[in-house]
Amino acid sequence: LNRGMFVHVRNALHNMPAVDVAFILESTPVKTRFAFWQLIDSEFHGEILEELSEDVRTSIVRQMMPEAVAEATEGMDTDDLAQVLRSLPDELYQEVLNSLDHQDRHRAEAALAYEEFTAGSVMNTDTVTIRPDVTVEVVLRYLRMRAELPKNTDSLYVVDQDDILIGEVSLNQLVTSRPDLLIAQLMNTEVNPIAATMPETEAAQQFERYNWVSAAVVDEQNHLLGRITIDDMVDIIREDAEHSMMSMAGLDDEEDTFAPVVQSTKKRSIWLGVNLLTALLAATVSNFFEDILSQLAVLAILNTIVPSMGGVAGNQTLTLVIRAMALGQVLPTNTRSLLLKELTIGFLNGIIWAVLIAGIVGVWKQDITLAAVIAFAMLMNMLAAGIAGVTIPLLLKKFNIDPALAGSVILTTVTDIIGIFAFLGSAALLLS
Amino acid sequence: LNRGMFVHVRNALHNMPAVDVAFILESTPVKTRFAFWQLIDSEFHGEILEELSEDVRTSIVRQMMPEAVAEATEGMDTDDLAQVLRSLPDELYQEVLNSLDHQDRHRAEAALAYEEFTAGSVMNTDTVTIRPDVTVEVVLRYLRMRAELPKNTDSLYVVDQDDILIGEVSLNQLVTSRPDLLIAQLMNTEVNPIAATMPETEAAQQFERYNWVSAAVVDEQNHLLGRITIDDMVDIIREDAEHSMMSMAGLDDEEDTFAPVVQSTKKRSIWLGVNLLTALLAATVSNFFEDILSQLAVLAILNTIVPSMGGVAGNQTLTLVIRAMALGQVLPTNTRSLLLKELTIGFLNGIIWAVLIAGIVGVWKQDITLAAVIAFAMLMNMLAAGIAGVTIPLLLKKFNIDPALAGSVILTTVTDIIGIFAFLGSAALLLS
Repeated sequence: LNRGMFVHVRNALHNMPAVDVAFILESTPVKTRFAFWQLIDSEFHGEILEELSEDVRTSIVRQMMPEAVAEATEGMDTDDLAQVLRSLPDELYQEVLNSLDHQDRHRAEAALAYEEFTAGSVMNTDTVTIRPDVTVEVVLRYLRMRAELPKNTDSLYVVDQDDILIGEVSLNQLVTSRPDLLIAQLMNTEVNPIAATMPETEAAQQFERYNWVSAAVVDEQNHLLGRITIDDMVDIIREDAEHSMMSMAGLDDEEDTFAPVVQSTKKRSIWLGVNLLTALLAATVSNFFEDILSQLAVLAILNTIVPSMGGVAGNQTLTLVIRAMALGQVLPTNTRSLLLKELTIGFLNGIIWAVLIAGIVGVWKQDITLAAVIAFAMLMNMLAAGIAGVTIPLLLKKFNIDPALAGSVILTTVTDIIGIFAFLGSAALLLS
Repeated sequence: LNRGMFVHVRNALHNMPAVDVAFILESTPVKTRFAFWQLIDSEFHGEILEELSEDVRTSIVRQMMPEAVAEATEGMDTDDLAQVLRSLPDELYQEVLNSLDHQDRHRAEAALAYEEFTAGSVMNTDTVTIRPDVTVEVVLRYLRMRAELPKNTDSLYVVDQDDILIGEVSLNQLVTSRPDLLIAQLMNTEVNPIAATMPETEAAQQFERYNWVSAAVVDEQNHLLGRITIDDMVDIIREDAEHSMMSMAGLDDEEDTFAPVVQSTKKRSIWLGVNLLTALLAATVSNFFEDILSQLAVLAILNTIVPSMGGVAGNQTLTLVIRAMALGQVLPTNTRSLLLKELTIGFLNGIIWAVLIAGIVGVWKQDITLAAVIAFAMLMNMLAAGIAGVTIPLLLKKFNIDPALAGSVILTTVTDIIGIFAFLGSAALLLS
C-alpha cells in the first residue's frame, strides 16, 4: 500500500460501523489482517473486538501488546471481556489482567468465575432492578433520571431487599399501564430465570423455543446475577447448528476461513489419520478375498459401488438423527419407531438399487450370477446403513462422545466393511 | 389408549404451553401424530400450528377439514397465516380462503402477495405508528389508552401523513426521555428499514449482524408495510445453518424426522441415484485398467485408499468454503488467497499421507515400487482435493446452483476419478 492508499483505507475503516470492520477483518487473509488492524485507531479496537468471531479475535489479540489489550477492553461488555481474557495464552493473561483498572478487573474475575460455555460466562451484569412496592410513575421518573438503559433492555427485574428475583416488568407493560399502579400488581411473577450453571447451548434452546429477547440469570438461591440477551444467543444458535456440519467433515467448528496453513493442516490431520485407518481396515477385508480378486478382475472394478451407496444412504440417516438429537427430538419412547422407519427405508432403498444395479451389471458384464451377487450385497448394505445410521449416534451419545464428530467415520467403516464382505464373500461362494 | 389414559393425556396437553405441545407433536411418529392432534381442544389448534415446523404443520393441516383449518387460523399472525395457506394443496387452499372471515382473508391475501421467502412474506402488519409532532407525554398517554402492545414491540415507528417511514423511537428512549420532548427531536432518523422484496435469509443476516430485535419493512417508496421480529429470524438463521448440513447429505432441509417412509424414500432416492452414476463412472475408470488389475490383485485391494483420503480432504475444504460463502466471507478479492491456502494445505497433506501410506504399503506388501506408486497417487489426489474443494463451490455459485446440494457429489466424483487414475495409471506404467 502506498501512502495515499493508506490514508484512504484508514478513513474508510473509521467511517464504518464496528460490525462491518469486523466483517472485513474476518474476510481478510491472515497475513494482511494484522496490518489492517494497526491501521485502525486504537479507540475503536474494543468495539471491533466485541464483534469478531472467536478464532479471528484470538489471532489478533495474541499479536497485540498487553497494555494495548487492556486499553481495548476498557468498558467492554462483561461477557466479551471474559472471552478475550480466556483466549489469551497464560503469560499474557496475567499481564493483561494486571493492566486492567480496578473496576474492570473485578468484573472480569466475576465472569471468569463461571465455567466456559455456561450461561454465567455469557451473561452481562448490567441489569436494571426495581422494587415491588413502588408505582409505575416512580419507576418512570427513576428511568428518566438514569437517562439511558443498557442496549436490548426489554424488561426490568423486580427484586426484594436480598436481591432475590421475584418478578419481571417489561417496558411494554410499563408504557401501557396506569401510572398509579404498583409494580407488585403489574409484575409477571412466572419468570423462568436461567441458572448461571446451565450450559449456554441449553439457554440458547430456551430462547429459541420461548421467543425471549432477554432473560434473567440467577444463582441457586434465586439471587439475580445478570441477564442474557438474544444477540449473544443468536451467535450460539448459529454456532450450534454449524457445529454438526463442521464436525461431520472433521473440521474444528471454530475454524477461521483464513487460518494459517500449518494450524489448519494440523487440525485437519486427525480426521485424515482416522480415515486412513478405516480405509486400511477396508483394504484388509478385501485382502481376505485376494484369491477371487486375482481370478476375476471384474470384482475389483465393481468393488467400490456397494460401499459407496451404503455410505451415502447411511449418512443420510445419520445426518437426520444427529439433527433430531440436536433439537432434542429423540426420546427413549420414540427410538424404536425411528429405527423401524429407517430400517424400512433401508429395505425399500435396498430393493430399488439392487434391482437397478443388477440390471446395469447384467447388461454391462453379461453375467447373471454376477448381477445377483451385487444385488444381494446392495440389499444387505442398505439394511446395514439404516440400522447403523440410527444406532451409531445413539450409542455414541450414551458414551458421551459427540455423534457429529465420530458418527460419520464409524458409519462409513461399517458400510464399507459390510459392503465389501457381502460382495466379495458371495462372489467367492458363487463365482469361484 | 384406554379411556382413563385418554383423559389423562388430554388434560396434560391442555395444561402445557403451545410450544411444548408443538415439540411433542414433532417428536411423535407420523401415525400417532394426528391422533394426538385430535385429542387437543380445537381452540388451541391455532397457537400450536404457529409453533410447528413447516413439514410437520403441513402433514397435520392436510388431514384437517377446511372449516377446521379456517377456524384454527383465526387471528393468527399474518406471516403464519400465509404459511399455513401456502402449505395447503390447491383444492383445499381455495376452500380455506373462502371460509376465512373478511378481515383474515384480507390480511392473508396481502401477505400472499409477496413471494415466498421474501421479507414481505414473513412480516407482521401489527406495527404501532406515531407522528413526529407530538410529545413523549402524548405518546405515553396514547399507549396507556391502547393498554396493550404487540409482542416483541421494542420500537414505535414514526411516519408522516403519507405513511412514509421517517424515524423510529425505541421504548427504551421513550421511558428515559423528558415528557415534554417532541418525538421529532427524539427519534432516530438513521433507520435501516428492510425492503419487502429482500430475501428472508438476507434479512436474517442483517438481524444477526446488527443485533436487531425488530425492524420495519417498507415498500420501494419507503411506505411502512409492517415489521419483522427476531423470533421469526432466529428460525431462519437456524434453518439456514442446517440447510448446508442437510443438503450436503442429500436430504431435504425441511425433512421431518418422522416423515412417512415412502415420502422419505422418494426424497432421498434422487441423491442415491446421482451417487450410483458417479460410482459407475469410477468403476468405468477402473475398467480401463482391467489388464493390470487381473495381473495384480493387490491393486484391487489398495484401490479404495487414495480415493477415500482425497474425498475426506476435499470435503473438509468444501465444507469450509460453503460455510464461508453462507456467511458472505468469500469475495472476489480474497478467492486467490483462499485457493492458495487450500492448495498449500493439500500439498502438505499430500506429503504427510504419501510418506505414511508408502511406509505402510512397503512394509505390508514388501514392494518398493508399489509403495512409490501409491505415494504418488496420494500426493496428486490431495492436491486435486484442495483445488476442487475451492473451485467447485465457486463455479456452482456462478451457475446459480446451490453448492451445499451439488458440491459434495461432484467433488467426490473428481477425487474418485483422479485417485483411481493416478493409482492404477502409474501402476500400469511401472508394474506391468
